[in-house]
Amino acid sequence: MQVGIGIIGAGTVGGALARKLLDEGDAIAAKSGLGLDLVKVAVRNPDKARPFHLPADRVTTDPMEVVDDDRVQLVVELMGGLEPAGAVVERALRAGKAVVTANKELVAARGLELTSLAEEQGVALLYEAAVGGGIPIIRPLSQSLAGEPLSRVLGIVNGTTNFILTKMTEEGAPYDQVLAEAQQLGFAEADPAADVGGGDAASKAAILASLAFGTWIDGPSVPREGIDTIDVADLSHAAGLGYVVKLLAVAEETEAGVAVRVHPTLVPDDHPLASIRGAHNAIYIEGPQIGELLFSGPGAGGDPTATAVLGDVIDAARELLAGAQVTPPVRFQPSRLADLDHTVTRRYYRLEVVDSPGVLASIAEEFASHDVSIASVWQEGRGAGATLLIVTHEAPEAAHAAAEAELRALPVVREVGAMFRVLGG
Amino acid sequence: MQVGIGIIGAGTVGGALARKLLDEGDAIAAKSGLGLDLVKVAVRNPDKARPFHLPADRVTTDPMEVVDDDRVQLVVELMGGLEPAGAVVERALRAGKAVVTANKELVAARGLELTSLAEEQGVALLYEAAVGGGIPIIRPLSQSLAGEPLSRVLGIVNGTTNFILTKMTEEGAPYDQVLAEAQQLGFAEADPAADVGGGDAASKAAILASLAFGTWIDGPSVPREGIDTIDVADLSHAAGLGYVVKLLAVAEETEAGVAVRVHPTLVPDDHPLASIRGAHNAIYIEGPQIGELLFSGPGAGGDPTATAVLGDVIDAARELLAGAQVTPPVRFQPSRLADLDHTVTRRYYRLEVVDSPGVLASIAEEFASHDVSIASVWQEGRGAGATLLIVTHEAPEAAHAAAEAELRALPVVREVGAMFRVLGG
Repeated sequence: MQVGIGIIGAGTVGGALARKLLDEGDAIAAKSGLGLDLVKVAVRNPDKARPFHLPADRVTTDPMEVVDDDRVQLVVELMGGLEPAGAVVERALRAGKAVVTANKELVAARGLELTSLAEEQGVALLYEAAVGGGIPIIRPLSQSLAGEPLSRVLGIVNGTTNFILTKMTEEGAPYDQVLAEAQQLGFAEADPAADVGGGDAASKAAILASLAFGTWIDGPSVPREGIDTIDVADLSHAAGLGYVVKLLAVAEETEAGVAVRVHPTLVPDDHPLASIRGAHNAIYIEGPQIGELLFSGPGAGGDPTATAVLGDVIDAARELLAGAQVTPPVRFQPSRLADLDHTVTRRYYRLEVVDSPGVLASIAEEFASHDVSIASVWQEGRGAGATLLIVTHEAPEAAHAAAEAELRALPVVREVGAMFRVLGG
Repeated sequence: MQVGIGIIGAGTVGGALARKLLDEGDAIAAKSGLGLDLVKVAVRNPDKARPFHLPADRVTTDPMEVVDDDRVQLVVELMGGLEPAGAVVERALRAGKAVVTANKELVAARGLELTSLAEEQGVALLYEAAVGGGIPIIRPLSQSLAGEPLSRVLGIVNGTTNFILTKMTEEGAPYDQVLAEAQQLGFAEADPAADVGGGDAASKAAILASLAFGTWIDGPSVPREGIDTIDVADLSHAAGLGYVVKLLAVAEETEAGVAVRVHPTLVPDDHPLASIRGAHNAIYIEGPQIGELLFSGPGAGGDPTATAVLGDVIDAARELLAGAQVTPPVRFQPSRLADLDHTVTRRYYRLEVVDSPGVLASIAEEFASHDVSIASVWQEGRGAGATLLIVTHEAPEAAHAAAEAELRALPVVREVGAMFRVLGG
């Protein structure tokens, strides 16, 4: 049974996918019973060398030519970005074609609308590769765990930032130097803003939260902080306190709604996420009945991501041939995104203070006046200036923000050198 | 949209599932759009206290009454064992009902026949909970990774034995004592044979291998060795050499076919599986394109397993309502099970030897005469007797077996105290 496939975008992932479809077609057919026929590929530059070989009449520079080709029953969108990817996906769905995409930005921004459209049209819209690269996480979350009232999902979902933080931590090298190195090795883009600023992770956090809690969370509405202002000194302070700093995507069910956010986080050394090094990704899932689950693996790269895309292609092809839509498995309720102000967190501060009697008392008083209670304090250095490392107990972000503002105004505080959240039970 | 569910077996898992269906029906409906109507439950003893409440006319002691009830569209088999579970599943499929089961023994022994029957009947037969308890692994392996030519799957898939080995390793306590403790804590059955003898893990190994490599491997044909003869001294020797002993299910693509087996294995300390402690399970997957994936979580327990079963129930119900069969996703080719003799492994030996000049030379000669090359040797103790710890390089099992037989016959070898396989690259 043959299914006609069109690929739009033949970069790292698209190229790897086209190669797999062309070279491993027999093995795929043996395992899945499906003939996946690569009908057409849209590329940006037709003259570029590719890891696959197609006759010239099956390559185009016009994405819509792929979508509109009658032989294409299933469109794989691997352009990335909101447009023209969004127009391509919408047009394919409206034409009754199944769509597989790895585009987290598009899914996070327009997933609710596009999954509804797919459902109306009775076709699949699958996006396993949008989060966690080669790690199967969308299907486990939305299908295997559909019956579990999950409590929290934590993810290291951006390989670039985890690579940078790992190198900074292990080599004591400053951010700028490690970023340059990551760019040279291909672990960071020439323009690293979406990665290091937390935007990429925020899109993935929105998708994870939506699937885990069955409420649609818009990607752009997820509060995010990046790693681009991290001082390597704080990684070493954190290590001294028994923590490792990770850029975490956090999604949790709270009394105020579903709290979703991305920020650098102090993760206790003995937490399973603490050991995820380099460009690897991991997703950690907690639920009252399931306990704790960890999924880890390659979060990016052409081949692993192409494997995830191909898994979706096989599923979508099977649905096409069965003549029935079985996905989408999750119904999204209206957004229950919690206000960040009401989200309860623990914080770590590095305060550069003048070293005089009563300093700690006045700082402690500011915290206390906002009902933020201090869990521990370490002082480093003496003399003209000293460094205080403070870890608080849990408090609402609004209370933390108010306390932080007052700390900044305190004459004895020369600088709030750093602030991170601390992963709590 | 309502789907009538029948549960057969209301023990730990069945009881937890019934409770979820009755208590969390609204949440499940909100998330999945499905009304799951628990029509009837078959129990062994109707007078036993249960974690759920059903009117007496919805409880029966006759499994077939559940299968034959016209309102039951989906049968959940949680009896375990080959019979009468096999007859129940077969009858349900023949009646065109979808089936969800957690019965690894049944799936491993009759999966090929039963999945074919399900396909003929156009209904789902799902078994996510048969391997890894609450860890989603069947769906990722058979769907997300359908397009990957996997090279190896390693699993810690039996919680009882991992609990026992962890306690023996960490507390230095002997097997019998730890087994008794595990039985008291509910981590081991009164009759622990299926767990400690490797049979349970062998069933799971067969299922993992079948899905990973698309070739049906019969559970009973999987070679297995258990942990019941392990001397705690060897766990400590292994630790000294940088290994931890785990009961591993191993399935790998080799030149001789798909090699599948279960045995205690020396796992290097820095391997991700080395850190899986207690009753936890983990599955580690390797492929040329995907790299390495790790899935870990609770491998057993009523609630986690019920969550996995419920995920299947939701999938199967969705297919029923769509009026189309989308599963089974994997076509099984005829068995390509490799002969164990041709499987290449590394081995660890503890040899109790007489301490006289030339002992090592004569032992080394026996290994060499069978083309087994020694990677390292440690000697402990001196005097009348000494202990040699030998780790070999890779060699076919047939060569290892021949070398071992000759070692046992050597006058200078007082005892082959222990033999384990060593996890190799």
